[in-house]
This record gives sequence, structure tokens and C-alpha cells, in this order.
Amino acid sequence: MTETATPKAANTMWGGRFAEGPDAIMTAINASIGFDQRLYAQDIAGSRAHAAMLAAQGILSDSDAAAIGEGLLTVLSEIEGGKFTFSTALEDIHLNVESRLTELIGEPGKRLHTGRSRNDQVAVDFRLWVRDQCDAAISGLEALMKAFLAQAEAGIDWVMPGFTHLQTAQPVTWGHHMMAYVEMFARDRSRFQDARRRMNECPLGAAALAGTSFPIDRFATAQALGFDRPTANSLDSVSDRDFALEFLSASSICAMHLSRFAEELVIWSSAQFRFVRLSDRWTTGSSIMPQKKNPDAAELLRAKLGRILGATVALFTIMKGLALTYSKDMQEDKEQVFDAADNLMLGLAAMTGMVSDMVANRPVLETAAASGFSTATDLADWLVKNLGLPFREAHHVTGTLVALAEKKGCDLPDLSIQEMTAVHAGITQDVYSVLGVQNSVRSRASYGGTSPERVAEQVARWQAALA
Amino acid sequence: MTETATPKAANTMWGGRFAEGPDAIMTAINASIGFDQRLYAQDIAGSRAHAAMLAAQGILSDSDAAAIGEGLLTVLSEIEGGKFTFSTALEDIHLNVESRLTELIGEPGKRLHTGRSRNDQVAVDFRLWVRDQCDAAISGLEALMKAFLAQAEAGIDWVMPGFTHLQTAQPVTWGHHMMAYVEMFARDRSRFQDARRRMNECPLGAAALAGTSFPIDRFATAQALGFDRPTANSLDSVSDRDFALEFLSASSICAMHLSRFAEELVIWSSAQFRFVRLSDRWTTGSSIMPQKKNPDAAELLRAKLGRILGATVALFTIMKGLALTYSKDMQEDKEQVFDAADNLMLGLAAMTGMVSDMVANRPVLETAAASGFSTATDLADWLVKNLGLPFREAHHVTGTLVALAEKKGCDLPDLSIQEMTAVHAGITQDVYSVLGVQNSVRSRASYGGTSPERVAEQVARWQAALA
Amino acid sequence: MTETATPKAANTMWGGRFAEGPDAIMTAINASIGFDQRLYAQDIAGSRAHAAMLAAQGILSDSDAAAIGEGLLTVLSEIEGGKFTFSTALEDIHLNVESRLTELIGEPGKRLHTGRSRNDQVAVDFRLWVRDQCDAAISGLEALMKAFLAQAEAGIDWVMPGFTHLQTAQPVTWGHHMMAYVEMFARDRSRFQDARRRMNECPLGAAALAGTSFPIDRFATAQALGFDRPTANSLDSVSDRDFALEFLSASSICAMHLSRFAEELVIWSSAQFRFVRLSDRWTTGSSIMPQKKNPDAAELLRAKLGRILGATVALFTIMKGLALTYSKDMQEDKEQVFDAADNLMLGLAAMTGMVSDMVANRPVLETAAASGFSTATDLADWLVKNLGLPFREAHHVTGTLVALAEKKGCDLPDLSIQEMTAVHAGITQDVYSVLGVQNSVRSRASYGGTSPERVAEQVARWQAALA
Amino acid sequence: MTETATPKAANTMWGGRFAEGPDAIMTAINASIGFDQRLYAQDIAGSRAHAAMLAAQGILSDSDAAAIGEGLLTVLSEIEGGKFTFSTALEDIHLNVESRLTELIGEPGKRLHTGRSRNDQVAVDFRLWVRDQCDAAISGLEALMKAFLAQAEAGIDWVMPGFTHLQTAQPVTWGHHMMAYVEMFARDRSRFQDARRRMNECPLGAAALAGTSFPIDRFATAQALGFDRPTANSLDSVSDRDFALEFLSASSICAMHLSRFAEELVIWSSAQFRFVRLSDRWTTGSSIMPQKKNPDAAELLRAKLGRILGATVALFTIMKGLALTYSKDMQEDKEQVFDAADNLMLGLAAMTGMVSDMVANRPVLETAAASGFSTATDLADWLVKNLGLPFREAHHVTGTLVALAEKKGCDLPDLSIQEMTAVHAGITQDVYSVLGVQNSVRSRASYGGTSPERVAEQVARWQAALA
Repeated sequence: MTETATPKAANTMWGGRFAEGPDAIMTAINASIGFDQRLYAQDIAGSRAHAAMLAAQGILSDSDAAAIGEGLLTVLSEIEGGKFTFSTALEDIHLNVESRLTELIGEPGKRLHTGRSRNDQVAVDFRLWVRDQCDAAISGLEALMKAFLAQAEAGIDWVMPGFTHLQTAQPVTWGHHMMAYVEMFARDRSRFQDARRRMNECPLGAAALAGTSFPIDRFATAQALGFDRPTANSLDSVSDRDFALEFLSASSICAMHLSRFAEELVIWSSAQFRFVRLSDRWTTGSSIMPQKKNPDAAELLRAKLGRILGATVALFTIMKGLALTYSKDMQEDKEQVFDAADNLMLGLAAMTGMVSDMVANRPVLETAAASGFSTATDLADWLVKNLGLPFREAHHVTGTLVALAEKKGCDLPDLSIQEMTAVHAGITQDVYSVLGVQNSVRSRASYGGTSPERVAEQVARWQAALA
Repeated sequence: MTETATPKAANTMWGGRFAEGPDAIMTAINASIGFDQRLYAQDIAGSRAHAAMLAAQGILSDSDAAAIGEGLLTVLSEIEGGKFTFSTALEDIHLNVESRLTELIGEPGKRLHTGRSRNDQVAVDFRLWVRDQCDAAISGLEALMKAFLAQAEAGIDWVMPGFTHLQTAQPVTWGHHMMAYVEMFARDRSRFQDARRRMNECPLGAAALAGTSFPIDRFATAQALGFDRPTANSLDSVSDRDFALEFLSASSICAMHLSRFAEELVIWSSAQFRFVRLSDRWTTGSSIMPQKKNPDAAELLRAKLGRILGATVALFTIMKGLALTYSKDMQEDKEQVFDAADNLMLGLAAMTGMVSDMVANRPVLETAAASGFSTATDLADWLVKNLGLPFREAHHVTGTLVALAEKKGCDLPDLSIQEMTAVHAGITQDVYSVLGVQNSVRSRASYGGTSPERVAEQVARWQAALA
Repeated sequence: MTETATPKAANTMWGGRFAEGPDAIMTAINASIGFDQRLYAQDIAGSRAHAAMLAAQGILSDSDAAAIGEGLLTVLSEIEGGKFTFSTALEDIHLNVESRLTELIGEPGKRLHTGRSRNDQVAVDFRLWVRDQCDAAISGLEALMKAFLAQAEAGIDWVMPGFTHLQTAQPVTWGHHMMAYVEMFARDRSRFQDARRRMNECPLGAAALAGTSFPIDRFATAQALGFDRPTANSLDSVSDRDFALEFLSASSICAMHLSRFAEELVIWSSAQFRFVRLSDRWTTGSSIMPQKKNPDAAELLRAKLGRILGATVALFTIMKGLALTYSKDMQEDKEQVFDAADNLMLGLAAMTGMVSDMVANRPVLETAAASGFSTATDLADWLVKNLGLPFREAHHVTGTLVALAEKKGCDLPDLSIQEMTAVHAGITQDVYSVLGVQNSVRSRASYGGTSPERVAEQVARWQAALA
Repeated sequence: MTETATPKAANTMWGGRFAEGPDAIMTAINASIGFDQRLYAQDIAGSRAHAAMLAAQGILSDSDAAAIGEGLLTVLSEIEGGKFTFSTALEDIHLNVESRLTELIGEPGKRLHTGRSRNDQVAVDFRLWVRDQCDAAISGLEALMKAFLAQAEAGIDWVMPGFTHLQTAQPVTWGHHMMAYVEMFARDRSRFQDARRRMNECPLGAAALAGTSFPIDRFATAQALGFDRPTANSLDSVSDRDFALEFLSASSICAMHLSRFAEELVIWSSAQFRFVRLSDRWTTGSSIMPQKKNPDAAELLRAKLGRILGATVALFTIMKGLALTYSKDMQEDKEQVFDAADNLMLGLAAMTGMVSDMVANRPVLETAAASGFSTATDLADWLVKNLGLPFREAHHVTGTLVALAEKKGCDLPDLSIQEMTAVHAGITQDVYSVLGVQNSVRSRASYGGTSPERVAEQVARWQAALA
């Protein structure tokens, strides 16, 4: 696609009233064709549905409608074939398509705009586009969930440190950690599904703002375009951008989830952690430091939240305090959503690839899991269960033993039974059974817990759900 | 409620390991009791459910559980009676409540924390609080929708100018304009309903991060607290703040809607517009200009989006790139949500009051509706329907007639039939029938259009839905 | 300029270590040449300064340096002549330029990268670009200030209503209102000047992150590129994006100012206000409502704050919590700044045009200024000055008289002296002298006040300053 | 301080005109005394300066001015002594103070408000408060810079890994890393200094919006309050909040810097890194995991950017599109700035404490610095300098040697000279001299580089500057 800028040219669509043509600055700030040409397929689909309905209602002759329908397909193939010349003087995708249609088929083309306006036209075009992005996000999320599921299934019982505050807290399993992200991305999917359902009402037929006196059938166009129903208030229809804001909000939450795993990948790839090895595919080298294997893709995914949240803030700020109905401010909506959607889809794809390719470093994970007194809680729980200590007292006893081990430079299982009983007389040899990481993870069998048994159930549940 | 700051005091809950007490700065930055005391009811409800479950599972004796249950009710009544002394040294609401419980009932109090952690405890407390706010938002939105409905019903056929770009576009009805906001706030309600449903899973029992080895019954506590089910992954349970982000996002969209009507009220209250009269209740005077009647409440509501969006950005930024699971960064979540929720509820209540009290200035609205060539579109549509002109040609003819009228300083109906036919020979006397605002609004009878008939249907539909 | 995407191609610059080429997704997410090609002139200037310095220090032979210098000029002319083929496989502008240079001049091209890295190279390129934008913003602001000054000078003594809360408060002068914006944009200019001064340190020579062992002369390259001095810490040099954040913050404040006057223009252009007439150049028509003259440019300028604030939030979020030094997250900085800068410059130019072209509607402004009891404060001040009433009592008396006038449906000067003295016996005929708008504005002669005398002084001051 | 809410009470300050008192909702949304009481000292200082000026200009009698001056000091001591009862019915700090003053001294109190308005009063109060916060930020930053300087001085030549992408890149020194933050916080200081200078103009005397007819001396009040001069345009004076936005923007950049070092502390405190040991003072334990030593303060500081950026977004959104002059929207400015300033000052203090207390783990740092082929660049540079290889070829040779070492599982210095020469015949024994980390850091002696010599110069420079 190429774009021909023709500043200073008279805009023949609304020209009569203006003595002067808009100059280059106005063209640059006002014309949207530079970005809204992405809506060409939606615009043409909407116009085809509109023309067919006009004919069915007797507002247009069947022959005019047929000419329009065919002409629009020609325009579509011209655009998709790269043979269409977009004109900045024609401002936007709507006028570009209609103008070309009229060149192709003559007078019937001038009848297409009956009973509608650019206000409802852009509303339906943009809504169709955002609806497609919801579908794309849902697909992308499902692929990503499957990648995490595959990792989880492979490592249901691999132990690794569970962190709070990036401090080793308790041993968990690799599978359990992977499944945490399945839950997050499942909520994202659910949000996009809700957003899609809520936006799936057709604004076409709201016309400029008040509806129209032509006997149009809005239920017919809604159905033809896959909407559940037409919107119920024409003023709202042309001034509503909730669907874009909800898409952006859901995308921001999803991008936040991506940023969290991206951060983990960056940390896990460091020489100090070495928890995971990313494939060459998702890393790059350095122009000056030949030894580097940089987790660039992970870092870029960590940053994407900024971009998507920025787009969200932009559209909220734009919409703030706009009197009804349509104002030109709202033209600033599209680039924000386009950029956010593009980056979300790219981010989901890249993360799916990285997760699929990454290789856990099991020995390092297991060693790390066993260090740092990670089974102290197991010791405290043993004291509660076996000696009947109140939890807070068990906690105190455990703290004393940890301090002792730390002072000695050893781990908890390395303390002798004498050292143990010196702190609390009731402790028996049995305590050593809970101080190993394998026992620890197996014991946490409460629903949602990290025991391999529980994780396996969750893996199976999600495999079935995504099958 | 009073708060006693005891900086430098040893924190007896986790004290043993630390030689030094945290000093005043650390206390100021670390303690959350100054704000999380708002969660007291949720914290106590969660603890009561937990204790009852522990007893049912045989983890706690029935007598201990009974003592805990009663003791917690005593703590609750102390707090609600203003007799509870919150301690900053005890950091947060969880330790404040538990510490007082143990003062009251002794050793059984120390057994309460079995099989849980502050990580899942704060997660369930905060989720319960946000769930309540969803309910409050839903109620507040319904009251506001009813206020708009009442205005709409009263003015189903009052004409007023419909604006695009704050320029008079076409006549619409007062009822139609009011119903546009009913649609917006209905979508907000739907978003809060979806968010509530999605967050309604119970994280209690995730313990610190990995689940627990005690044979707890998470389905029981979930049910006791009104949740649909327990959460499925313990790591996710303690690191998830999606429910807060989704609440904030929905609140931001709702606040954006409030800002739009607030802007309209400010403009409509100006001496130049005089479209509406706000009641004294929602306006204030000036200390130096006695004649002023300032729409303060409307202006403050216009500003609330800033505050709520700011909270949303804050929490997204806070959550960005946090490695699993719980990190102390997440403690910064609550004040943002508290402030946003308080301001949203206040904003809904104030807007409900303003909408209920406001009085439309019908003569001014009608006069404004008839000015500015507002029926030009009707003229264009007449040309299409009666003379078979293509829409684009009808548009051109109409533009020429508007330019003529503007030059003459008159309105469209004031042009003579000779002046009309000089522009297009086919125009007949019948054209004058569509140039009046009453005819104009009545003619826009497409679904969702502004005709009183259509508006009445929507009013009836929503009255039934909200009954 | 065209861009040739060559996914899957081995990246010969860092290829040896990686068995696989990055696939299409990685290319899409990782390559920056799609946007950083905008830095070509800065990149080449930086390389030329670097090469000249290397030769002066004896690190490069004079003949190699000469070949590099000439070769780079050839690359520059190829790019500016549209004859350069950008390659995505070469990732970024730095490798594209260097690769072409080596094609052109052979081995000396491979010596250019001595003693530097892409980390300091991009830092200097981007800083040069942002510095240019500061200069562009300063120029744009000065043009805009002159446009406001011209309006102010023409209308030094035209009266118009001064608003608070969009309610008529006191009469002011058109010139005074225009000069308020001169003050705002002057502060913006001052902020860009400060930002420019603060960023004017040269990071080149920081190399990858730690400096270099080559005997480079950073003061020489700094001077050659117009910087005040080299940066003082190499780690900071490659991880600092403060200059971009400060530019964005200053741009956001400036865009906020634009949004305020844009809002005034939208309101003032309404049929209800008619305070100003925008030229056809900055307004557009409607495809369905031929009578409309929409203030599109003003609306778009009102929206630009959203876009620029969104970019600001994006970059803050991206930079949050990045460990030193360079991380790939930072590659997301450029598109945000490019878009914000483009829109700021466009916004300044468009506003300058709109302000230059707009025509105040003096009769409407004067009539509006005189309505709404706008001289009530003058009455209250008269009571203080002439009768010695405490201000708060004078305020109360005035309020009573306004209420009386409102009840009678007249204005303050229309009250008889009998009605006045009935409220306060001391009032004399002299009071009527302060109740006219011309007297009112003339009387407000305190420094910074609205009296034509004061406004004229400010106009003169700024004309001198901007001469 | 206690606050007495008296909803429904008639507001005697502007009551006459309103039949109804504002009800509880309006009170809750409208009254600002709940937060603007923090401005009491500024409000009283402003009033004292105003009264003294009024007397000097003969607008007030000397005895009235004296009574006001003394009365205000009484109010001040009542507030500071906790004996003042704030009233919500009196809305804000201005009316609370003035009302109490009039209770204390009678009629002269009613004369204080001559020649001013709440609009300029709040503008000057808030500006004084923000100016104080700039001073506090500057002091806080200097303390923090000194803490980093002390760390830098102690560890000028301690080696540690320098990271890009959190991958070991080249060895650097601890002192150099610390000094990077000195540079960042120095820029922050410079920004607060610029902001302070720009905001240091006095709006008092702008009155409601237009100036006043009383012969006030604005230069006198400006001087009395420490301002450089009065503001030059009264409309701008009451509608300007740039000073708050600039303070917030500078605070956001500063908070971003805090977040970066906070992230480093969290990562460095992990069991995997162990680069640093935080003191007990800035860490906390866990209620269930006795072994944990959580870097809570660092995590909270990492989060503070969210809060401060949120406040920034809030105020930008609030100010967007506000028509001149004062609108009630602007009342939402204070809580945002209060919260941001409180958290910034707390953050600076906490970071100063943490930096002062932290202990670097030198052996771990040095070992880490030597691993990961961190001197590969030194090898490449050796090849350029000694063998005259073009940089890009030297880079390729080095990459091959790194790959060989990685395959052998050894480090670069462990390769034999035979293995080296097999890759490039020119390599000699001398190469080993550059492969040690101590040599490496010493060699990077370019200005701003990491060599101890360079770092020592920077430490000395900053010690002198901050002395």
C-alpha cells in the first residue's frame, strides 16, 4: 500500500462551504488515513452489510445494491493486492473506499451513504477490529497456556525454591510454578471473553447521532456482521469507546502477567541463578562482549506493559470530560489500540516461543530448593502436629534452631538431635523425616498446594479444558 | 479508633532473630496498620471461618475453636465500639487482631495461625473487601440509572440540540440524551458483575505460598465466606492482585462516564447555555463574588477520573515485573484501592443527587434545538427520498442552501420556495414539513433513534430491568 | 526509504556464537531499525566525531579516519537521497550504517567501532535527537507566544467575561486572557531550556558500560558534538534515560496548556458562546450535516495530552526497577519519545495557526461581560473603601443586593438608589460609577491585574523579550 | 487536631444566597479541611504578610493590622498545640483560620480578606508548601548522595561484575557503581532546584482572578514570603498548577531511580547473589518462615514509583482541558501532592539508611566479577592494540575463543597459549596480562571509566561539592 499525500487539495466531500483548503499542518493533524487504513476490511464488510440491508428494505434498488456489493469487493481486492492508492486529501478510510467505489461504479456509489454517517461507520469498523483482537488474544493466550502446561507436565515433581521477597521460602515444584501462570493467563482469557461479549452490539444505524428517518433494519445489519444485537441508544453508539478501554485494560493486566514471568526469566538466566536456559532463538549477543547471551526477548516483554499501559492512560485521558456525542478527540483512539494490540499479540507469541524452548536446570533448582532453611516451616508444623505446641510457640522454637544452624554455618538437617532437644526437649528423631525437600513438597497436599499429586490434577484439568 | 505508635519496640511476633528493632523510618514505611485496619471485619470473618474449619477437620479442639470464635467476636465489638487500641509495633491488622485475641483467651489464640500465613490471610481479607466494593458499585450504579431514568421519563419528548464537536448537529430529545447515560452506566454495572464473579474464589489455605501439610478443607472455608470455590494454585493465590486491578479498571471507565456528564453539567450551567439548573444543594457560592452559583460538585466529579486513573496506574506500576510470589511491594495496593473505591462511591452518590435535583430549562433547550440549521440532514434526506437524489448529491444541494441561508442571516425554513427551487428545481412545498424540530425528532424512529416512541420503549425496558 | 526484512538470515555481526537465526517473531520484537532509522543523522555525526578523535589520539591512522569520514558522508547522502536499503537483519541503525560503510570502504570500516559500543552509541544518538527536539519545542513555543501576543496587543482593552467554574465572575480584558497563555508557554519554554542544559553532556566513550582502555579523548568528542562536557560515570551514561523522561514531562505540561486553550476554543465556538470565530483552515465540515463547522483542530489538540502523557507513563513504567546498566527494555524508549515529540511539534504549529487566524467577537464578549452581576465585587469593594465596611460585611450587603436584582430580573446598575439604600443606608449615587464593565476592568490596576494599562506593560515586556 | 463535622449546618460565609445547606454527601465531596489543614502554617504566614502590606499601603489601620497579626499567631499556636477544632462546615483551612481569628479579635478579622480571594490565597499557600517540599527533597537527596559517596569511597577498588541485561559483562568497581547513583540523584537535585526557582513567584494579590482595585503592593508581599517577584498575570496566577506538576514529575524521576537501586538490593540480597547484606533495621522476618530475612524496605521503595507516578497521572488528568480560570476540579490537587511528597521524603530517608547500613560481600563480588568470560572485551581490545586487527575481526576471534572455553568448561585465562594461537597465530603470552579482573578495571581509565583512579577523582569532586 502506498499513500499519496495531496495537501492543499480541495476536499471535494465537504468542500463547498470552505473557501480555503486546509493547509499542510491541518492535513497532518486531521487526516487519519495514515492509520485508519488498517480498518479497510471492516469498513468494506460494514458497507456491504449496509447496502444489502438498504436493498432488502427497499431504500436502494437491487441493481444499485448489487453494483455496490461487487464494487466493494473490487476495492477490497485492490487494497489487498497493493494496487490501491490511499489519498490523504480524502482524509480517512471511509471516504477513500467510497470515493474509489464511485469511480468504479458511478452513481450507485453515491447512494451508499444513505441512512448512515461516518460517526456510526467508524464506530462499527473499529468495534469489529477490536472484536477480532479479542479473538486473537484468546487464541494467543490458549497457545501460551499450552506451552506452560507442557512445561508443567514435564516437571510435575521437580523441586525448586519457592520465593517470597526473592528469598527462599519453601520448596515447591516446577510444575506448580508453571501452573501459576496458567491460572493468570486463564483469567486474562476470561476477561477478553467478557469484553468481547459486552462489545458485541452493533452501532451501525445510529447515523450521525440521532438515528435516521429511513426505514432501516438494524437487526439485519447486526446479524450480518456477527453482532448479538444492535446498540440501544444512538447518542451512546457514536460516543462510546468503552469497548476500546476495556480491551486496553484487559491487555494491561495480561501484559503485567507477561512482565512478571519475563522478570523471572531475566533473573533465572543470570550467572548467579542459572535456573533456566533460554534457547538461542530468544537471546542475542553483544557487539563488544562476545560471551554474552542476553535475554533480549524477555526484557522486551517485561517492557511491553509500559507501552500498553501508556496506551490505556492515553485513551482514558482523551475520553475524560468529553461532552456528548462524537468529538474529534476520539480520532486519537485508534493508534493507541493498534499499537497496544500489535504488541500484545507479539508478546504472547514471543512468550509462547520462549516458554516452549526453555530448559529448566534441574540440579541447580534442586540444590537451591534445599538451601536457606527452606524446610523451617515443615519443622514448625511438625512441632504443632507431634508435640501439640501452639503455632506461635512452634514458630519461636524453630526460629531458635534456625539461628543456631546459621551460626554453625550448617543447614537444619545437619543439627544433631542433642542440639535439637536442647532447644525443645520433646523433639524426636522423627523430625528429620520432614526436613528433606522431597518430603516437604509431597506433604503440601492441600487443594491448590504444591504436592506433585495436586499439580498433576491441575495439569489434567487444564489439558481437558484446552483440548 | 486510636492508634498508638510504639517505634523502637521489639516486634515480639518475629523478634527473636533480629538484634535491633526497626527504627522510626522503617516503622513509618513498613507498618500497614494505619490503613489496613479498614479490613478488620474481613480479617475477623476469615479467621472465624478458618478456626471453624480447623475444628471440623480435627486440627483444633472444639473448645479451642469455640474460644477463638467467641474471642474474635469480642475483638470485633471492641473495634466497632471504638475501644480497640491499634498498635503500630504490631504492624498490621492481622497481628493486631491475633495479639488481642491471645490477650483475651490465652493459649488457644496462639493456635489460630495453624495452616495459614499472613500471605493468604491478607489475600482473602482484601478480596472480601474488594468484593464488597463491587456490590456497592453495583448498587450505586442502579440508583444512578434510576435517577437518569426518571429524568428521561419526564422528558421523553422535550427537544434539545444534539451536539457533535459541541456544534449543534440535529435535534434530539432530552429523554434520549438521559438514556445514553443509562446505557453507559449499565455497561459499568455489567463490568463490576463480571469482575465480582471472576474474583469470587477463595485464596485462604494457600498458606505462605505452597499450601500446607495440615489436612485443611479449603472448600469449607470458601463456602463459609461466600466464595464459589477455592483458588486452584497456591503460588498464584498469594501473588495475584488481578481482582484489584480489574476493580480499578472498571472504576476508571465508570469515572470517565461521570466526567462526561459532569462536563456537560458545567457547560450547561453556564450563563451562555442555561440548559439546566442545578439545585443549591450541589452548588456553592464565592467568598468574593456573591452572585456566583458554582457547579462545584460537577467539577469535582469531573476530576475524580484523575484520582481513580492515578490509582490504577499506581497499582499497575507496582505490580510490573514482580517475581513470584508475594513481595512487600504489594502492600502498596490497599491505599490505592481504598481511595479509588471511596471516591467512586462518593461520586456515584453525588451524581445521583445532582441528576435527581436538576431541572431542565425546556424553552432554552427548544430554542437552541431549532437554531443552527439543525434540520439540514432532514432536508438532505427529503431530497433522497422524494427526488431520488444520490445521498452525496443531496448533501451538496443542502450545503448550498445552508450557505445561502447563512448569508441571508436566516434559518432554513425561512428560505422561500423560489430560493429553494433556484438551487434544485425538484424541491416542492412539502419540504417545509421536515424542517421543524418536532417533526425531525419524530422522524428518527430507527431502533435506538431519538424519536419519543423509541425513547419510551427504552425507558420501559430499563424500568422493568431495574424494578 | 524502504526496509528489507530478511528474517532467518544469520546476523553476521554477532552470529558466530548462535547456531540458530532468530525467527520471524524474534525479528519482529527485537529489531529496532523500523523506528531507530530516524536517528541516522545523529548516528553518523557521532561516528564522524568518534573517528576524528580516534585519529587525533593515534588510535586510528589518519588515512583510515579520512576514509571513514568520507564514507559516512556517502552513507548520509544515500539515506537522505532515498537510496539506502535498510535491513532488518542488521537490527538497528548502528549496524546498518556501519555495515554499509564497510561495504563502501572496506577494512577501515571495521576499525570504527574501536573504543565504543552500541550502548554508548545509542545513548549519544538519542540524546542528540532529544536535544534537537528541545530546540524545536523552544522555537515552536516562541512562535506560539508571538501569536498570543499579537492577539493580546490587538485587544488590550476589549472586555470579556472572566470565568471561574465557567461562571461569569468579573470582567477582564481579551488582552489579559491572551497574556495568561503567554505566561504558561513561557514557563514551558523555560522547562525545555533547563532540560536541554541538563542533558547536554556526552555519553560517548562510556563504551559498553565501564569505559575503555583505549586512550580516547571524551572532551574532544563532547565538544565536536556541541555538548558542554562528557558524562562523569560510564555506568550511568549507558543506563540513563532521564533526558527522555524530562523531555516527556515538560512536553506533558505543555500539552496540558494546549488542552486548556483548546477546550476554550471548543466552548467559545459553540452556538451558545460565539466568543470567537475560527478560520476555515482549522475547522472541517460534516459528511451528513452540511451546516456544521467543527473545531476539529482544537479537539485534536485537546486530545494530544492523552497521547503525550501516555508516552510519559510508558517510559516511566519501562524504566521502573531496571537493574544497572543497559537492559533491552530500554529499546522501548524511542517510539514513545518520537511520537510524543512529533505530536507536540504538530500541536504547537497547529495552535499557532489557530491563534493567528481566530477572530474575537467583540460585541458578544462585551455583552457577556456585562451580564451575570459581574461587577458585584466592585460593589463590595466600593462599600469597603467608601463606607469603611469590613470586607465580610460588604460581601453580605452585596449578596443581598444581587439577590434582589435577580428576583427583579434586572442587573445591578438597574437597581434604584432607593432600593440600594434600603439595604444599606450609606450607599450613595457614586456607587453607579463602579458598576460598568469598562470602569471595572480599568480599576483592577494592581500588578498583574486586568486593567488595560497593566496588560499593555506586559505586552511590551514580552515583545521586547521575544524580539 | 480533631475535626468536628457539622453537616447540614448553614455555611455562614456564603450562606445568604442558598436556601438549603449542603447535605452530607456534598459536604463529604466538597469540604477540603480534612486535608488542606496541612497548609495552616502557610495560610497564616500568607495572611500575616497580606495584613502587614495592607497597613503599609493605608488600606488597613495599623491597629487593625496589629490585631490581625497577633490574632493569627494565637491561631497558629492553637493549631500547633492541638487545641484548634477544625470545622467541616467551614470547608477549608482559609475559612477555619479566618473564622477563628474573628472570634478572637472581632471586627478587624473581617477586614483581613480585603483585596484578596480564596483563589489567590490557596495558590500562595500551596505554592509555599510545595516550595518547602523542594527544599526537603534537596536536603534528602544530599543526605542520600553522601551515603552513596561513603560507600563509594570505601570500595573505590573493590571489583564486582558489571551487568548488562543482568548478564555479567565486564568487571567494574563497587565505587564506580555507587557513583552512578550519585550522578542520578544529583540530576534529581538539579531538577528540584530548577523547579523551585521557576515556582518562586508570588500569586498573592491576583485576587479572585482579575487583580484588585485596592492599591496593594504585590512586590512587598512577595518579598515578605521569600518569593523572587509577584506573578505577572492574575488569570494565570489562580489557574496555574504547573509548580505542582513539575514537582510531581521531578519526584517521579527520582522515585524511578530509587526503584532501580531497590531492585538491585532485592536481587543482591537473594541467596543466589549474596552481593550485599542489609542490616536488620531494614529487613523483616516472616510469621511462618523463621529463616527469612526479607528486604521489605527495598521492596517498598521499589513500589513507591507506582504511587508517585499515579499521583502525577492523576493531576495531569485533572488539569486536562480546564477552561480558565479556577475550577473546583483543582481542589483535587493537594492530596496527590501531599501523598507523593510524603512518600518521596520517606523513601529518600529509608534509602539513605539502607545504603548507610549495607555491607558489601567483597569475596562474592570478586569471584562473580571473574566469572562469565568477563574480560572478553579486554582480550578483543588487546587484539586491536597489539595485532592491529580491525575491531570487528578482533571481536570474531574473541567469540571463537569464548566458545572454546565454554565448551571446555573453563575460563579464558585457563586456555593454553597453544589453544589461543590455534585460533589466531599472532597471540602472545602478553595476552594473559589483560585477562585478570584487577588489570581489567585498572585499564578502563578513560574519563568516567571504572578504573579506581577515575573513581577516586569523582569521589573527591562530589565530596567537595557536597561539603
